[in-house]
Amino acid sequence: MSSLAERMARLIVHGEHPYNAEPPLSRLRASYRTPAGDFYVRSHGDLPEIDAATWRLSVDDKLLGPLDLSLADLRARFPEATVTATMQCAGNRRADMRAVAPVSGDPWDAGAIGTADWTGVRLGDVLRAAGVTPGADLHVAFESHDVVEGRPYGVSIPLAKALADETLLAFAMNGAPLLPEHGFPARAVVPGFAGVRSPKWLRRITVQDHPSDNPMQADDYKLFPPDVTAETADPAEGHTIETMPLNAAICEPPRGARLEAGDTPVRGYAIAGDRAVVRVDVSGDGGRSWRQATLEHEAGAPFAWTFWEIVLDLPPGEHELAVRAWDSAGQTQPALPDDTWNFKGYLSASWHRVRVEVA
Amino acid sequence: MSSLAERMARLIVHGEHPYNAEPPLSRLRASYRTPAGDFYVRSHGDLPEIDAATWRLSVDDKLLGPLDLSLADLRARFPEATVTATMQCAGNRRADMRAVAPVSGDPWDAGAIGTADWTGVRLGDVLRAAGVTPGADLHVAFESHDVVEGRPYGVSIPLAKALADETLLAFAMNGAPLLPEHGFPARAVVPGFAGVRSPKWLRRITVQDHPSDNPMQADDYKLFPPDVTAETADPAEGHTIETMPLNAAICEPPRGARLEAGDTPVRGYAIAGDRAVVRVDVSGDGGRSWRQATLEHEAGAPFAWTFWEIVLDLPPGEHELAVRAWDSAGQTQPALPDDTWNFKGYLSASWHRVRVEVA
Repeated sequence: MSSLAERMARLIVHGEHPYNAEPPLSRLRASYRTPAGDFYVRSHGDLPEIDAATWRLSVDDKLLGPLDLSLADLRARFPEATVTATMQCAGNRRADMRAVAPVSGDPWDAGAIGTADWTGVRLGDVLRAAGVTPGADLHVAFESHDVVEGRPYGVSIPLAKALADETLLAFAMNGAPLLPEHGFPARAVVPGFAGVRSPKWLRRITVQDHPSDNPMQADDYKLFPPDVTAETADPAEGHTIETMPLNAAICEPPRGARLEAGDTPVRGYAIAGDRAVVRVDVSGDGGRSWRQATLEHEAGAPFAWTFWEIVLDLPPGEHELAVRAWDSAGQTQPALPDDTWNFKGYLSASWHRVRVEVA
Repeated sequence: MSSLAERMARLIVHGEHPYNAEPPLSRLRASYRTPAGDFYVRSHGDLPEIDAATWRLSVDDKLLGPLDLSLADLRARFPEATVTATMQCAGNRRADMRAVAPVSGDPWDAGAIGTADWTGVRLGDVLRAAGVTPGADLHVAFESHDVVEGRPYGVSIPLAKALADETLLAFAMNGAPLLPEHGFPARAVVPGFAGVRSPKWLRRITVQDHPSDNPMQADDYKLFPPDVTAETADPAEGHTIETMPLNAAICEPPRGARLEAGDTPVRGYAIAGDRAVVRVDVSGDGGRSWRQATLEHEAGAPFAWTFWEIVLDLPPGEHELAVRAWDSAGQTQPALPDDTWNFKGYLSASWHRVRVEVA
């Protein structure tokens, strides 16, 4: 295994403490399953160092009392499950919003996303073993080993999502144990939801009748209207970001590329939260005309991204390439970053635009 | 019961043969449940006249052979179910697309939508009684008594949706038997899907391994890219419209209203297919600034629309009011009708804009 420092050197690092980094887009587009070392990293505190041999997961249910499970217990008691799913930061493509007005947080390009085979056990199997039964308005709260402003990282998801087949406690990514920066020894994987709801370095799971009161859940990762500012924001009024909206990005050619005239392959990804991507339109003229890309999607992986590709014949001059996706509900994306701007810079999902110059 | 002619006189009639009509928007917004007589009517052939006493529904399963059910059989054998759901035509708001370029079909304003309490039996209960079990890539095909270009009306839906709790064989609308124009004596109600998939005047249901090959399913109600025309369209390449996209409309004040200066109530609806509407933004200046409307949504009715209301203080002059909704995935609508234009005029779902003049 490479060292963390070696892996950091391969990424675009937005910050070291906490460590936040994304891959260059051409490398992101090189493989449907993102190698763990190319996978974006979003952390909110220092990376915890955990001994897998002594690690325990505690599962609390108010009625039945706690379970206390080692990695060996989890593997022995529950069937192994693998889900191919895309993980995406709520701040992916935030950089595009900065052209409208300042936003808080790291200026992620379109690389705060990746897809992996996640292997572990179904969270629902563990919860059912703890005596949990489906119930409206119940929430599954996670607490982790990383510390954010003096408190353990904590978030929650609705019980229905926790019991869904696709939601895992994962030990492995693409067939290998999780890397330290991806949550070793165990993390939640909540496909379709923003990455913030898939906590790494898990230590406790609690079923309760209210969302987590941890600031990460109660205050952060909320979507606000465009007229709300850091000063006026009331977290209780913001929308809790869970399922992510329709999005698409151009990974090749890169922004500002100088190309030869003639056939230019244009490639990228698209993703639709809990829906399917059914069409991807690509424009060589800033959205005045569109052509349809060829789609590549893994069968049986409804929560994984769709890769797309098209060859455009670009004449000499400056061009704005643009992409927009359509989902299975016939929904498409807004055209301008202004249309989704919010002061936190979340859910940046307007047409992705890349200017290139053809010689 | 009023006569059909009396009910027609209350609606904006786009055509009499087939009969297509929608209510004025202010009356649509007057009640969360749309009175049957105010409910839009979309038909593709003449209205069938059916004797409820002799009506039979045949349910075919290739393995188990047919069931043949009277209304009394359906009522006796299966528990009654009521679902509050919105029905919407795929062509709702088509008129807004005509400003971009010509489109085929009737020029529906924003009234090709309505909400009702639908009462009947669960389609899933009937299918299970016929021996149907869940299976990937199976389809439930419907055939009806109305005739379109010499063939019975026919469409299909995926089996998973047919087995879902919300999908009904409905006999009643808002507590009264279906009106003739709404499918008497029985229709399908497939909440969240375009109205075309909720056939009226049912006569046969077949479970099969392919979608219906009826032209209504195979050729019509497909979403095409903006560069495709009636001449170049290949139905096999279009997206089959099922779940409807996020949409919102201003119902009051009406387009072109002349208002007094001061507080102006602005009211309308929003709907998000199989998701929830979480926010509605309203603009008094064509989208340069936005305020958030108050939302009204019926508890326990995930497939029903959301009503919204806001009071704007409009100064004298001409104003473009606009509305856009946000769904539970943080998705919003495109700004311009150009962004969703297609030659069939389906899924018109850009910001709804209404020009008014304040004295």
